[in-house]
Amino acid sequence: MRIIVYGVGAIGGTVAAALTLSGQEVIGIARGAQLKAIQDDGLLLRTPEKHERAKFSCVSDPTEIDFRPDDAILLTMKTQDTLAALERLRTAGVTGQPLFCVQNGVTNERLALRLFPEVHGVTVIMPAAISAPGEIAAHSVPRHGIFDIGRYPGGSNAHDTKLAEALEAANIATFVSQDVMQSKYGKLILNLSNILQAALGLDADFKHLETLVRAEAEAAYRAAGIFWLDVGAADARRAQLVKQQPIAGIDRLGSSTTQSLARGGGSIETDYLNGEIVLLGRLHGVPVPVNTYFTELGARMAREGLKPGAVSVAQAEADLSALGAMPGR
Amino acid sequence: MRIIVYGVGAIGGTVAAALTLSGQEVIGIARGAQLKAIQDDGLLLRTPEKHERAKFSCVSDPTEIDFRPDDAILLTMKTQDTLAALERLRTAGVTGQPLFCVQNGVTNERLALRLFPEVHGVTVIMPAAISAPGEIAAHSVPRHGIFDIGRYPGGSNAHDTKLAEALEAANIATFVSQDVMQSKYGKLILNLSNILQAALGLDADFKHLETLVRAEAEAAYRAAGIFWLDVGAADARRAQLVKQQPIAGIDRLGSSTTQSLARGGGSIETDYLNGEIVLLGRLHGVPVPVNTYFTELGARMAREGLKPGAVSVAQAEADLSALGAMPGR
Repeated sequence: MRIIVYGVGAIGGTVAAALTLSGQEVIGIARGAQLKAIQDDGLLLRTPEKHERAKFSCVSDPTEIDFRPDDAILLTMKTQDTLAALERLRTAGVTGQPLFCVQNGVTNERLALRLFPEVHGVTVIMPAAISAPGEIAAHSVPRHGIFDIGRYPGGSNAHDTKLAEALEAANIATFVSQDVMQSKYGKLILNLSNILQAALGLDADFKHLETLVRAEAEAAYRAAGIFWLDVGAADARRAQLVKQQPIAGIDRLGSSTTQSLARGGGSIETDYLNGEIVLLGRLHGVPVPVNTYFTELGARMAREGLKPGAVSVAQAEADLSALGAMPGR
Repeated sequence: MRIIVYGVGAIGGTVAAALTLSGQEVIGIARGAQLKAIQDDGLLLRTPEKHERAKFSCVSDPTEIDFRPDDAILLTMKTQDTLAALERLRTAGVTGQPLFCVQNGVTNERLALRLFPEVHGVTVIMPAAISAPGEIAAHSVPRHGIFDIGRYPGGSNAHDTKLAEALEAANIATFVSQDVMQSKYGKLILNLSNILQAALGLDADFKHLETLVRAEAEAAYRAAGIFWLDVGAADARRAQLVKQQPIAGIDRLGSSTTQSLARGGGSIETDYLNGEIVLLGRLHGVPVPVNTYFTELGARMAREGLKPGAVSVAQAEADLSALGAMPGR
């Protein structure tokens, strides 16, 4: 097995580096400064315990890879970039190879299954960030993270167990699931806070707004008949496997949405996080005004190039009150 | 009400011209040679009975329009262009205005509902083509076409009746439906032949392959619990309302997929026609090898710039036999 990591950002970078360091053959697909840095010097994986440099082959497009039947392809871009990536994989001659959506949100698997027959979902619990081009900060000990993995739309097969073995050997705790989407819907509930943190700032107190977006999600899931697994604080695996610790010289970690806004670039994943709840609410007649507000706010912040924390909690509360979406006001 | 027609191709052009000629205020959004021709001289609507020139305002992007609350927005691009169009509408300040997916396939409504609350589906039965920049050939008499219209995911409201009235006044027979997606799933079955005609040619005999792709679709619908309405030859409205007739000096009409391949440009809608059946088959465990073959063939023909009719029926049969997908061979 050779593992293709398509998108060498925080998650793809940690996975690519950890797999490489475990002796696994990896090819990365990256862009811009990240591509150049990796081609020049490899990828530096910084953890609370050590710094290690991983050297692996890295290209800018799938058509530069001579795909083999035993390749496993990991999609590690954000959802708004998935469709274009799938088109590039098809152009590059990928057909029956397994695709693993190592991504937040629950839309990627369906996008992939339209074009490819062997699609798998992966739930990602992995606190990591790009700290500089060619450098990833992975904050979790003793493992880099926890992955749930399974076939889409359900079940599991040998592709899951094979990749799980490789990931385990690379210090990523990996659990094969018979219904990985339940776990991904659980993860989505946690990701609804990404835009709260990105819009309101790392230090803002937005617990009460977090409660609102999550309650809307649970109501929408129930109306849609969607089951979900709590992979948050109640997940017993966390305390053992993913303890988040600081890394000397690295700033405190923001969510992937915070990282996107900080970098700029005009694109944001909120449409596929809070926006998924908006869609479910509209499909099933469940009011979802708080997720709608934050989805639209995310789009506006990306469009206008606003930086993380540009909106105050008081402003968000006033906006939501005007929409009749703040209980008790 | 003002009607924004986003995508002035064969369908959008017929609709924009017919609405304009009926006295309705219309703004088109178009590109390239089509935009320039319309801005210079309006759009010439050629039918079997007469030729009329419609002059309406036309822009290249939604941000050039000062949207009003009473605008109705018609999406008339192909599915592969819908997501980018929705983003442009959001950037232009569209919020609660009704969006009508006047499009083939069944994916657009879901894409639109993620970003906008008031989404409607429209089934399009309208034999038309761009005959030259600034010129549309609409082959049906006595009406330009038949539309079913309703709210997504179900029901109907005043937006439907209001647009239906305007379309009726523009000689498009329009029926408000309480479950428009049933009719759109029925139309999708007809559209599965688009790529057969495009790949194999207008004069090829592919009835036996048509039977195969439709049988796969019906099996996939049954497994998915999807109901559909036959809007094909058995639809009694057709004989009365949409009789397809020649227009002097205009070549025989090919499907929209044939028109796309003839124009070139590298993009094709087959992923959202036959590809929808492929997705349903994979989701629900129904074998769909013939639709899979033609979806992949469509992608390859678009990528390689192959012209309509580039594949022989014998070649397609041989390929399908090799895949074990030709019954009795």
